[in-house]
Amino acid sequence: MFDQVTMKLNVDPLILGALKEDITSEDVSTNCVMPHAQQGEVDLICKEDGIICGLQVFARVFELLDERVNVEFYVKDGDEVTNGQPVGKVTGDIRVLLSGERTALNYLQRMSGIATYTHGVASLLKGSRTKLLDTRKTSPNNRIFEKYSVRIGGGNNHRYNLTDGVMLKDNHIGAAGGVRQAVEMAKEYAPFVRKIEVEVENLEMVTEAVAAGADIIMLDNMDCEKIREAMNIINGKAEVEISGNVTRENIAKLSGLGVDYISSGALTHSAPILDLSLKNLHAVGKLEVAKTHAMSI
Amino acid sequence: MFDQVTMKLNVDPLILGALKEDITSEDVSTNCVMPHAQQGEVDLICKEDGIICGLQVFARVFELLDERVNVEFYVKDGDEVTNGQPVGKVTGDIRVLLSGERTALNYLQRMSGIATYTHGVASLLKGSRTKLLDTRKTSPNNRIFEKYSVRIGGGNNHRYNLTDGVMLKDNHIGAAGGVRQAVEMAKEYAPFVRKIEVEVENLEMVTEAVAAGADIIMLDNMDCEKIREAMNIINGKAEVEISGNVTRENIAKLSGLGVDYISSGALTHSAPILDLSLKNLHAVGKLEVAKTHAMSI
Amino acid sequence: MFDQVTMKLNVDPLILGALKEDITSEDVSTNCVMPHAQQGEVDLICKEDGIICGLQVFARVFELLDERVNVEFYVKDGDEVTNGQPVGKVTGDIRVLLSGERTALNYLQRMSGIATYTHGVASLLKGSRTKLLDTRKTSPNNRIFEKYSVRIGGGNNHRYNLTDGVMLKDNHIGAAGGVRQAVEMAKEYAPFVRKIEVEVENLEMVTEAVAAGADIIMLDNMDCEKIREAMNIINGKAEVEISGNVTRENIAKLSGLGVDYISSGALTHSAPILDLSLKNLHAVGKLEVAKTHAMSI
Amino acid sequence: MFDQVTMKLNVDPLILGALKEDITSEDVSTNCVMPHAQQGEVDLICKEDGIICGLQVFARVFELLDERVNVEFYVKDGDEVTNGQPVGKVTGDIRVLLSGERTALNYLQRMSGIATYTHGVASLLKGSRTKLLDTRKTSPNNRIFEKYSVRIGGGNNHRYNLTDGVMLKDNHIGAAGGVRQAVEMAKEYAPFVRKIEVEVENLEMVTEAVAAGADIIMLDNMDCEKIREAMNIINGKAEVEISGNVTRENIAKLSGLGVDYISSGALTHSAPILDLSLKNLHAVGKLEVAKTHAMSI
Amino acid sequence: MFDQVTMKLNVDPLILGALKEDITSEDVSTNCVMPHAQQGEVDLICKEDGIICGLQVFARVFELLDERVNVEFYVKDGDEVTNGQPVGKVTGDIRVLLSGERTALNYLQRMSGIATYTHGVASLLKGSRTKLLDTRKTSPNNRIFEKYSVRIGGGNNHRYNLTDGVMLKDNHIGAAGGVRQAVEMAKEYAPFVRKIEVEVENLEMVTEAVAAGADIIMLDNMDCEKIREAMNIINGKAEVEISGNVTRENIAKLSGLGVDYISSGALTHSAPILDLSLKNLHAVGKLEVAKTHAMSI
Amino acid sequence: MFDQVTMKLNVDPLILGALKEDITSEDVSTNCVMPHAQQGEVDLICKEDGIICGLQVFARVFELLDERVNVEFYVKDGDEVTNGQPVGKVTGDIRVLLSGERTALNYLQRMSGIATYTHGVASLLKGSRTKLLDTRKTSPNNRIFEKYSVRIGGGNNHRYNLTDGVMLKDNHIGAAGGVRQAVEMAKEYAPFVRKIEVEVENLEMVTEAVAAGADIIMLDNMDCEKIREAMNIINGKAEVEISGNVTRENIAKLSGLGVDYISSGALTHSAPILDLSLKNLHAVGKLEVAKTHAMSI
Repeated sequence: MFDQVTMKLNVDPLILGALKEDITSEDVSTNCVMPHAQQGEVDLICKEDGIICGLQVFARVFELLDERVNVEFYVKDGDEVTNGQPVGKVTGDIRVLLSGERTALNYLQRMSGIATYTHGVASLLKGSRTKLLDTRKTSPNNRIFEKYSVRIGGGNNHRYNLTDGVMLKDNHIGAAGGVRQAVEMAKEYAPFVRKIEVEVENLEMVTEAVAAGADIIMLDNMDCEKIREAMNIINGKAEVEISGNVTRENIAKLSGLGVDYISSGALTHSAPILDLSLKNLHAVGKLEVAKTHAMSI
Repeated sequence: MFDQVTMKLNVDPLILGALKEDITSEDVSTNCVMPHAQQGEVDLICKEDGIICGLQVFARVFELLDERVNVEFYVKDGDEVTNGQPVGKVTGDIRVLLSGERTALNYLQRMSGIATYTHGVASLLKGSRTKLLDTRKTSPNNRIFEKYSVRIGGGNNHRYNLTDGVMLKDNHIGAAGGVRQAVEMAKEYAPFVRKIEVEVENLEMVTEAVAAGADIIMLDNMDCEKIREAMNIINGKAEVEISGNVTRENIAKLSGLGVDYISSGALTHSAPILDLSLKNLHAVGKLEVAKTHAMSI
Repeated sequence: MFDQVTMKLNVDPLILGALKEDITSEDVSTNCVMPHAQQGEVDLICKEDGIICGLQVFARVFELLDERVNVEFYVKDGDEVTNGQPVGKVTGDIRVLLSGERTALNYLQRMSGIATYTHGVASLLKGSRTKLLDTRKTSPNNRIFEKYSVRIGGGNNHRYNLTDGVMLKDNHIGAAGGVRQAVEMAKEYAPFVRKIEVEVENLEMVTEAVAAGADIIMLDNMDCEKIREAMNIINGKAEVEISGNVTRENIAKLSGLGVDYISSGALTHSAPILDLSLKNLHAVGKLEVAKTHAMSI
Repeated sequence: MFDQVTMKLNVDPLILGALKEDITSEDVSTNCVMPHAQQGEVDLICKEDGIICGLQVFARVFELLDERVNVEFYVKDGDEVTNGQPVGKVTGDIRVLLSGERTALNYLQRMSGIATYTHGVASLLKGSRTKLLDTRKTSPNNRIFEKYSVRIGGGNNHRYNLTDGVMLKDNHIGAAGGVRQAVEMAKEYAPFVRKIEVEVENLEMVTEAVAAGADIIMLDNMDCEKIREAMNIINGKAEVEISGNVTRENIAKLSGLGVDYISSGALTHSAPILDLSLKNLHAVGKLEVAKTHAMSI
Repeated sequence: MFDQVTMKLNVDPLILGALKEDITSEDVSTNCVMPHAQQGEVDLICKEDGIICGLQVFARVFELLDERVNVEFYVKDGDEVTNGQPVGKVTGDIRVLLSGERTALNYLQRMSGIATYTHGVASLLKGSRTKLLDTRKTSPNNRIFEKYSVRIGGGNNHRYNLTDGVMLKDNHIGAAGGVRQAVEMAKEYAPFVRKIEVEVENLEMVTEAVAAGADIIMLDNMDCEKIREAMNIINGKAEVEISGNVTRENIAKLSGLGVDYISSGALTHSAPILDLSLKNLHAVGKLEVAKTHAMSI
Repeated sequence: MFDQVTMKLNVDPLILGALKEDITSEDVSTNCVMPHAQQGEVDLICKEDGIICGLQVFARVFELLDERVNVEFYVKDGDEVTNGQPVGKVTGDIRVLLSGERTALNYLQRMSGIATYTHGVASLLKGSRTKLLDTRKTSPNNRIFEKYSVRIGGGNNHRYNLTDGVMLKDNHIGAAGGVRQAVEMAKEYAPFVRKIEVEVENLEMVTEAVAAGADIIMLDNMDCEKIREAMNIINGKAEVEISGNVTRENIAKLSGLGVDYISSGALTHSAPILDLSLKNLHAVGKLEVAKTHAMSI
């Protein structure tokens, strides 16, 4: 959740980076024609059906530029929205609205795109005991936004990063000398609040992982038959995640296997954006002029 | 081009941010099982046909973690690659290879995805006088990578950001009091090395823009008929860009209109990734141990 | 223009850097004698005739230290000011006024110095068609302030930096293989919103540059005779900039040549400061004590 | 003193670093169960007798997370507090109170611990002419807090860092070629507002230091007899600091020697924390919902 | 483990912060007397018995200042060291050795202090099934060093921060409406790789926590009798941590209760430093002069 | 002195800021025509007589861009140089030489300008006992460079900033209640290694300052007659600084008064640059291609 704390500590620096990427010294076009502040208003409109996500981030872009900007929304994150639907309104100095527009929309469109795509995939798992998971295949410097969007779309989050989850893959197992040794070393080394997940490729490894006391077993690229056998071996002694070859087409079939989790990189690396735009910008009233502007040109 | 200068000043800080996003304090899984450095090697393999892009960035991820890592490539940015093709090899401390893998691939997959997608669209314009342009609809904090990928894919770059290009849209024109005034104010205010682009919505505005001496005229959301009429009015006195409603389907038709540029946000906001992975990690030889490691556990 | 957006994104970090340069841990002198907040007022006085510039930046220094400081100005950027004239007043905790004084004045004096100097040179071009340009010869980490000051003083800005303008010099031309090739490569590579400027040293190069379609031709260190010949060759097919050997003495003569632009590094690297100072600090009323101070000593 | 200026420039960045150390992306526990803001109140209670110190810093932690938090104190830095005594109250969104609690207490406990310990040692010097000094043996990235705490506890500050004080030790003296040469070189090189301190190990060096015009002479690890002889040689021509082997047990004896200063690293590197805690968190009234929260889940 | 990756991403920025805290613009004392580089050597000597910890960090301080410095150690982190024992040697430009000395020792002394203290407490648990845990009561901006030191001293790490571990305390339980609800909400919300820990104050809560499927139950401030009863209720269905009132005196008794973990804030907030120092600095050979120095004074 | 330590900690971040100011994403002109690395060489030539200063900083600009650049100098900081004199040579990838040129020269020209101007003024004091001092009237974010240049030019440094020197001015004295009280409060509060300087405006204040034990007395804007009277009162009991109305014309007269110091803001705020340029860039040999470039276009 983007509560105030997360916003201040972890989100604001990223938004500022994005704004500086777009404005190296000034918005030349705007400053050419608008030397003075002028209060205005603009509507945020959906141009596709989907799930809206990232409203706080959208608003924050403008607020970071000018705390006097006011953003009002008619929906909330996770709501279904439809083409043509007005979902909000931004009020403030028109120069700020113009300068922040692209960055604010870049966030909102991508986050809504991921929520929409995730929602579509998650709905295929409805009714089953299987939960949909994301991965670490996120856009660099955008993980916090994309993991949140998955959750808003009805998915669940796998580990956030390499520090806060243990996932022992083939190379870790090889280095340790075997599944059992790897799990033992992880239990010895990792903070005890972390579960130990092991990625396995065949049934022998499944047996070893169960015996070693792995908390979660990830069945990598197994076919349905193999998955069923693995489930029998595991028999409730560990949680089960499957991954690889997950498509919209076969996911329904996979959900029938009774696994706990299916993870999909596509949620974050393949979701197209949801189209939204700012329309009907018009001047209104009068801006309470900022202190530093009072005497400028 | 990512020459050494751009890499040092503008790319490195972003890669470091991405790495810190993935490693808050340590790679727990790796450190559980590998307390000591161990030299290893891993292959970079394509898993889809496409255009490779971002090799320098991929290599830089590992080099920023450990300057002793060596990355060798068998292809170069812009080359066509095919499913199964080995395209490079990374050699270094296995712990570094494991810790950097995801971030390096996240960059390479996305950049190659954009180059591949752009290449597909640009090839539809081949033979025409029309160039394909990107937009500012990029992932936040990834513009430098995505604009480069468009170029590698055969597209051209529109302005980099709000500071280095003048684009007068309806609101700027409204604020200025008309097309003529807006162009004049821009010529007065903006550094003289910038061309002045005006976005117009109808033929009256086209006429005004030409008269005002705009360098580039962007025809927004006009149909082919209107575009043809506009072209007649402009008659070579300004460059012409079209935008909006550009799809793979209609782009060929648009290219026949003789405009100078077609811009497409989809190049950066809709391109799926190109799948690549690191395979066959194995230990080799012996790592020349880093000074600070010599006496550690 | 330093609108709110530029202030927040691009100016504030520089001002904070300047303040930290002057205050490593605390203002010892002030804290020795003033353990408590005390509301005060101080006058900003001109001590030389000139053009005032940088009022927003001056105010921002104090506001960044304490948002409750109030700054009032009786003039605006670009106004002529005279020795002895009061131009503003700062009200707030005296400790903040004392701690911010030097940094605020350092900005204001330098910016006003550049505006004043530029104003003097620009006035020599009055009546001609020639505009005065700055260069990139600015104080490190002060470009945004100095380019703005040039504009306020009546000059125009050349490119902001190496990224947002194309200027092909002898070495670029040599690397490309000739003027024509260089211009072609630039048109191919650079974002299409940029004009292409070529620096030429003799009339052959002028001819080539015109033929190649350069947008701007810079005549480097040519005497008046050569410039006249070059103007004949160019004949309106490109804009013309002259540079080098520009002095207050010969600039009037140069302005008669009908070139579009004269650029001068001296505007930013040789302008002396304009003297201003804070005077008559005195206590007034009572400060609404900051929350974090309420219970401190 | 932590006035507003020091707080903004030098303290805030450190507190933000500490908060980010504790919150990488979100406070998961809190967000699990509190999706919405809820106004609450919590008491700050002492759990040991001692000297309170760091109240502003404690408050600032919460204010940096959410400016709407209100912190009220019943004591001020330097006051004696006793086990069980309520010393303040924090009011705000309960989620912010929970997320900031540990970081705020980590600062307050350590600062109060140092103030308490320093107070104990300084009281042993009461009545003598000798002042107690701290050293540079502070926790990395915490010097500003620890030096302040020493002062609040009744101690005095030695130089803040390597830049703002000259202390010529054996190696400096060796490099210069002798005490006299070292003092001369320091007077020549260092900004003239700094005193020159020399660390000496025997009486010959004392004599040389006095002759060379050292402002302060530090007697390193001398016994009382030697110190007395040194004092006779110095005879008021320089200030005298002693250091090394200073314990609670022998400090009273040392204070009788009439030296100006006794410095002790233990003040900052050995002080145990003073126990304080937040108790009785309970919901109250209703939070004025932040703009960005209005429409979130 | 401080492998190369952690060092580059997470440790270096903190060390640089600490160095800048100590050197605002230059080391005046050193620069007074040593205008030129001079190769030297200095010994690192223990001055107390204990467990050494932080050698890599110590070395890194010098390497960040000058990559040509060489640090050699005769021991490794976790080794027992004794008063008077030489444990390493630093070779490089004497100016760098002098300027980095204090910061390097500040890290090493504190880290060794924590390792030594932890080792003492952990040895009291030897032979029992109970592991010793640290807490988040670390020095601000030093957690990564202090958690590592606990591990080197024979302790184990609890969660690293608020993001990577779930700990439901009384206020979380209150907000959720009960232990069961809190656990359910946490399982729903938190990434599935995290265990759920609940802090309980009485036996009813213990029963609820077990029923709700908590992974870890923390018994807060219970006496031995209560702990025994709680252990009976839990009966292996969850891991058990005890906390509060843990002293060197009663810890042996607590270890007999068969709990999984005992956590102690004192490991990081009360450990005194281990005294170490740099001795016998002397010039040797000749420094290969850095490029930028070649022509300086 | 810019030793390695100062360079790494305090200078590098500023140079990087200046480079990023000039290169937002890439050097477009260079990249247009030079897609590949090409080893080259360029001469650094003086174009005016003066004192050279800032060679290390000049070199560092290139080294920060590419560590393989080699810079050789034929002079050292402080040397007199003459128009036309070659003073150094830079060798490396031509693209790096072109991209770094402006920033490197901006530093070198300004620093040499200040050294040259200071040298001129300082020579007027030769033979007297009076030393020339700088002030805090430096360009924002350039103090470290400008204070160093003053020293190289033969001047001395006053306090570096508000933290490391105590200067009690009229407002401090007013707040304290008088000169005596201000000096006492400063001696009580400021770290004891700092001298206490008092700024006085009349002879009564001089008398008070001497009585209060001020270490340095600054006579503000007094005429020669008043200064003489003040010197009589002070009579060696404090150091004496004069300031205000110092010009090249009257400084010789002032030096005859026997004061210890004369401070002048003009040294840093009025010094014109010393003209230097890079000439004769030409390709040589072959660059050892950087790893990340090996496979790029």
